[in-house]
Amino acid sequence: MVPVFPTVLTPQQTKIIRMLWRNGRVSRMDIARTTGWSRAKVSIEVSALIEKGLMEEIGEGQSLGGRRPQILSINSRLGYLIGMDIGATSIDIALANIHGEILAKHSEPADVRDAPEDVLGRCITLGKEFLLEKNIHTKQILAIGVGVPGPVDFSAGVLVAPPLMPLWEKYPIRTFLRTAFPQAVVVVDNDVNIMAIGEMHAGALNNLQHFIFVKVGTGIGSGIVSSGTLHRGADGCAGDIGHICIDKNGPLCRCGNLGCLEAVAAGPAIADYAMQAAIGGKSSILERRMNANGGRLTAVDVQAAMREGDRAAVEIIQTSGRLIGEALASLVNFFNPSHIFLGGGVSNLGNPFLSAIRQAVLQRSLPLATRRLVIEYSSLANEAGIHGAVHLALDHLLERIE
Amino acid sequence: MVPVFPTVLTPQQTKIIRMLWRNGRVSRMDIARTTGWSRAKVSIEVSALIEKGLMEEIGEGQSLGGRRPQILSINSRLGYLIGMDIGATSIDIALANIHGEILAKHSEPADVRDAPEDVLGRCITLGKEFLLEKNIHTKQILAIGVGVPGPVDFSAGVLVAPPLMPLWEKYPIRTFLRTAFPQAVVVVDNDVNIMAIGEMHAGALNNLQHFIFVKVGTGIGSGIVSSGTLHRGADGCAGDIGHICIDKNGPLCRCGNLGCLEAVAAGPAIADYAMQAAIGGKSSILERRMNANGGRLTAVDVQAAMREGDRAAVEIIQTSGRLIGEALASLVNFFNPSHIFLGGGVSNLGNPFLSAIRQAVLQRSLPLATRRLVIEYSSLANEAGIHGAVHLALDHLLERIE
Repeated sequence: MVPVFPTVLTPQQTKIIRMLWRNGRVSRMDIARTTGWSRAKVSIEVSALIEKGLMEEIGEGQSLGGRRPQILSINSRLGYLIGMDIGATSIDIALANIHGEILAKHSEPADVRDAPEDVLGRCITLGKEFLLEKNIHTKQILAIGVGVPGPVDFSAGVLVAPPLMPLWEKYPIRTFLRTAFPQAVVVVDNDVNIMAIGEMHAGALNNLQHFIFVKVGTGIGSGIVSSGTLHRGADGCAGDIGHICIDKNGPLCRCGNLGCLEAVAAGPAIADYAMQAAIGGKSSILERRMNANGGRLTAVDVQAAMREGDRAAVEIIQTSGRLIGEALASLVNFFNPSHIFLGGGVSNLGNPFLSAIRQAVLQRSLPLATRRLVIEYSSLANEAGIHGAVHLALDHLLERIE
Repeated sequence: MVPVFPTVLTPQQTKIIRMLWRNGRVSRMDIARTTGWSRAKVSIEVSALIEKGLMEEIGEGQSLGGRRPQILSINSRLGYLIGMDIGATSIDIALANIHGEILAKHSEPADVRDAPEDVLGRCITLGKEFLLEKNIHTKQILAIGVGVPGPVDFSAGVLVAPPLMPLWEKYPIRTFLRTAFPQAVVVVDNDVNIMAIGEMHAGALNNLQHFIFVKVGTGIGSGIVSSGTLHRGADGCAGDIGHICIDKNGPLCRCGNLGCLEAVAAGPAIADYAMQAAIGGKSSILERRMNANGGRLTAVDVQAAMREGDRAAVEIIQTSGRLIGEALASLVNFFNPSHIFLGGGVSNLGNPFLSAIRQAVLQRSLPLATRRLVIEYSSLANEAGIHGAVHLALDHLLERIE
């Protein structure tokens, strides 16, 4: 047991608590069925847990003949969770109840190149504001999940050689946050993994077993779910698809190799293609925007030009989609997911992008792997990460209860 | 409960049986600790299981102060398992005890293009010979695991559009084998998945969580293990890496696409490169073998030429290895395995092949994913499949005990 609970539990009680949390709402009969204990024994243990304030009866369920069963749930007043989704240029933070339901959230701009004390200090301030507002005590925060835009050594909870945020290298995020929330377990993961976790628990579809969440922004990464569990891989770096080779003779990537997916299809590549189109006289809309921006263009300009009906912009977006689709085609053959969800900065690239990805996957993947494959933007849009941070916290809390 | 046991179990007894099987050898104290039951209750249930002949005491364990605990195990006389590894040109069959340890095995040539009744009929004959030899009754065969060289719909237990064995399309393998072994549950999977399962349970390294088993032969396929479980994917076709695109302008593959890994690097491609070398006057050794073979060459000739020190043969093998390594590099970034094991017909291609694969992976994968990555021939050589077929049977039997 971690010291998150105000009391010591017997192994039997721990077992009930774990079961209840995962399933949400269960009856004493459900507990008896799963554990193999007698009904008398279940009743004794449940009463003890209710008395200790860990569990509560929340109403009556359907009768299966005889008295209606009381439905049991974890006591909602037991504690709370905080999720923090730290992006390259923003902070998203949420307060959630013990079931992972978000009670309050807040977003604001931030610069992750700043020192971790500054960014995390701001997160603490925002978290404490939630507590004041909701009249919650610091000690009631049982777990904090943090997503960061860089490679994370998951077991140590630190960033390793993060390109966007060099000041965070090996910074003890967990220790720093625990100074403010001493009762909380803190868990840190990368931004794409928390998006996949968010999709798994809060997405439009329940109980997906095998899917890939692809984030396309300044870089390209993915979070992988296998058998309903996030697949982190042997060193915690699974999902790093941005440096898959797409074109052996392609442009130089920041990793030092040629023709990486990221180098030919992510935000900066889209901006480069746009600059070429503007300078080459292929798009008056892009040229106008370039001149208005002081000679520069970003992926946002290409999106805007596409919405104005610019042909060159649509082609650029289709090119990016096709290249991403070609990389995904290999992964579809290998992993056979039921769904691929797209998120990140590209969530606004609309149908031309999605269609180009789908076409490339269909063309290069095996029929058996694509006959039921769904490729779609995440239904959570920009909130996959914050939901994921909350559920990462909850999962970690449950794992610690042994 | 499936009817594999001669008796009906209580849920408590089922729980103990499952626990015992997975862990091999446990004490009553271990059972009490895991289940949360009192020692008195555990003793009662264990006594009942011993009396029913399901469990046995196999000796004393280490004392932790006080009396030495009795070590419990599944009763070895409870029943047996059969594994069948059906290859394109061979049958491997094994009899194993209830723990998955092989007691007898046999290999012989076969032609999988024959009717399934013929090939499976021969497997039944061979299985019955084991039983006679070991004085085992047909009813004692509790489970049969079958590996076949083609795409399998795992839940239905049938082959779907198998290129090598069209007569087997949707053939009811399970029903056919159960006519001979009516007490057995039968489970069917493809050849590479059973190789991965074999590596997991019988390979040189224990408890590997994330690895890929790559089979290179006439085709190229892989079996994937994530978190210690075979990853079959949403449609059961995960691991199909033979049709990953390696070269958009490459040769036509039998799947209809251009430049698939299989088309440029598997056995037939190796044979093609050898023919070109022989005809082009680049290798007198290959030319001699080609003339001796009536104008044809296979991958086996290239292996032989390599052993004779033929430069062109070494280059061909290195080319195949490099192309396979380039495909694996993407999968290493995506999946972050701790190990890649190689098996199948290429297990004799030696160091030039392995080195070329390793070099290509190291060059194109991310440092974090390769710093501890091991790429090696399977220690089980040609026996990964048969071990896997046995453990597939055992796993399936355990899953059925509810």
